[in-house]
Amino acid sequence: MISKLIHKIEATHAPIVVGLDPMLKYIPDQIQQKAWETHGETLAGAAEAIWQFNKGIIDATCDLIPAVKPQIAMYEQFGVEGVAAFKKTVDYCKSKGLLVIGDVKRGDIGSTSEAYAVGHLGTVTVGSHTYAGFDEDFATVNPYLGSDGIKPFLNVCEACDKGIFVLVKTSNPSSGEFQDQQIDGVPLYELVADKVVEWGKESMDGAYSNVGCVIGATYPEMGKMLRKRMPHTYILVPGYGAQGGKAEDLVHYFNPDGLGAIINSSRGIIAAYQQERYQKFGSEHYADASRQAVLDMIADIHGTIAGRKSV
Amino acid sequence: MISKLIHKIEATHAPIVVGLDPMLKYIPDQIQQKAWETHGETLAGAAEAIWQFNKGIIDATCDLIPAVKPQIAMYEQFGVEGVAAFKKTVDYCKSKGLLVIGDVKRGDIGSTSEAYAVGHLGTVTVGSHTYAGFDEDFATVNPYLGSDGIKPFLNVCEACDKGIFVLVKTSNPSSGEFQDQQIDGVPLYELVADKVVEWGKESMDGAYSNVGCVIGATYPEMGKMLRKRMPHTYILVPGYGAQGGKAEDLVHYFNPDGLGAIINSSRGIIAAYQQERYQKFGSEHYADASRQAVLDMIADIHGTIAGRKSV
Repeated sequence: MISKLIHKIEATHAPIVVGLDPMLKYIPDQIQQKAWETHGETLAGAAEAIWQFNKGIIDATCDLIPAVKPQIAMYEQFGVEGVAAFKKTVDYCKSKGLLVIGDVKRGDIGSTSEAYAVGHLGTVTVGSHTYAGFDEDFATVNPYLGSDGIKPFLNVCEACDKGIFVLVKTSNPSSGEFQDQQIDGVPLYELVADKVVEWGKESMDGAYSNVGCVIGATYPEMGKMLRKRMPHTYILVPGYGAQGGKAEDLVHYFNPDGLGAIINSSRGIIAAYQQERYQKFGSEHYADASRQAVLDMIADIHGTIAGRKSV
Repeated sequence: MISKLIHKIEATHAPIVVGLDPMLKYIPDQIQQKAWETHGETLAGAAEAIWQFNKGIIDATCDLIPAVKPQIAMYEQFGVEGVAAFKKTVDYCKSKGLLVIGDVKRGDIGSTSEAYAVGHLGTVTVGSHTYAGFDEDFATVNPYLGSDGIKPFLNVCEACDKGIFVLVKTSNPSSGEFQDQQIDGVPLYELVADKVVEWGKESMDGAYSNVGCVIGATYPEMGKMLRKRMPHTYILVPGYGAQGGKAEDLVHYFNPDGLGAIINSSRGIIAAYQQERYQKFGSEHYADASRQAVLDMIADIHGTIAGRKSV
């Protein structure tokens, strides 16, 4: 699966992913009103609003980008109806040729972890039929429970040609509380990184592994060191833009081949029309604002990796 | 919320929770067949089968127990339809007077963690209305991302009188890979435990905090030490029975007041009829087998905490 992502990154020249993390406050009034008219001010109405909002952004940006990363929490907050909108979004993105990274941060043990892996990436058997529950292409996974939590995902990656991104060093201010703790002079996130490399050897797909990792753009020094420590691991990089990660820092996350990292932006893209810079589009043309924000992000990142092989 | 759980434990004399973690292989053929007849061999059919299976067990055990712990992964594997069966199960358990611990092991940062907290424990605003998405009473939470991931849950616990159980030392064989790593002579799980205590001070509810923790029954020495280190923290204990945790070890997880721990059993209860011990019930009476298994588990645990104040 990672080779599919790389091909799409090369085809679009865009090592970026758009985070489809809809909140009602990002959604233009006219979309909300229309959803209330058909579904009422209900969970189903909210689900309709976020789906229509997503669809506009997907239609306006799908030719520019390799992948999207819907954050399932933003859908789960609206209950079962929200989760249905998540699934609708996943399916629509795939119909538009986009790869889908399910930002689900699941993690459990044994048969439970297997159920998550099956539900999000694999297939489940019902009687004499098999079905894919959510059918993302990649999922993010939490490593706190150790190999028991990861192995079932590796099995599904191998069986169904899928991929995972394991949390190594997250972008948030308090990520260091546990992740930076020193163990014989080595921080925990490095131990996790070494395990990610070990797990990744079981699922190589060309020069890179189907087992990637997450390292926040807000910790560029750590990104630089980890990039060297795990040369065959793709890095999913959150924290660019709204969270404070700067383009000039992103160069450290790429390998000399111009590959090895994919940078996420969520509200910087999907709520672009609410920024002063893109205000001229107006809420009616929020999706055009998102398209312009994607173009600007690609240019910003290309600027940072100039001098390395163009992606 | 923790005081409500304690009252229910005292009323039932049962410091146990039944893990509603349905897999199709646990579900008697007659229930599966009936579900296929009405819904076909589909995801909706599977969801119907697990719901009917759950309902039988809930009806047969709800007078004996204070709470259930549905593991959402087992529902997510069947996609949106499975998640709908999870919600149906949560609602039905609450209608029967049971408290519901959503075993969701969520964990993210900032607004994302808030969305999980809101979706599982709180309420979300849609236009001029508010709704509870999944509306469990407690949720399990993963600490790897630090305080940023926990604080939004604390806010919801305070606002809506709910509780969480934070993963400290999980029951699986590889839990030590990261959790047991020594940081200045102290294992990571102890650092997490200390943070749980700190977070818990923000949400006290009587002698115990709404912020509980998870410590596996398979690590009794660690449970014993952690019990003393966090006297006001309720411990949710998985790993009893099928995973190898023994009743005689469980005494260490309780405080001298006979409180402070709640022991989970999942397949040992819900698939009891498949064990030799309860075979006589037959698959037609699987729910009666579950009831007997609950009674036996309560007796087993009472045996271990004899000599301490009866719960």
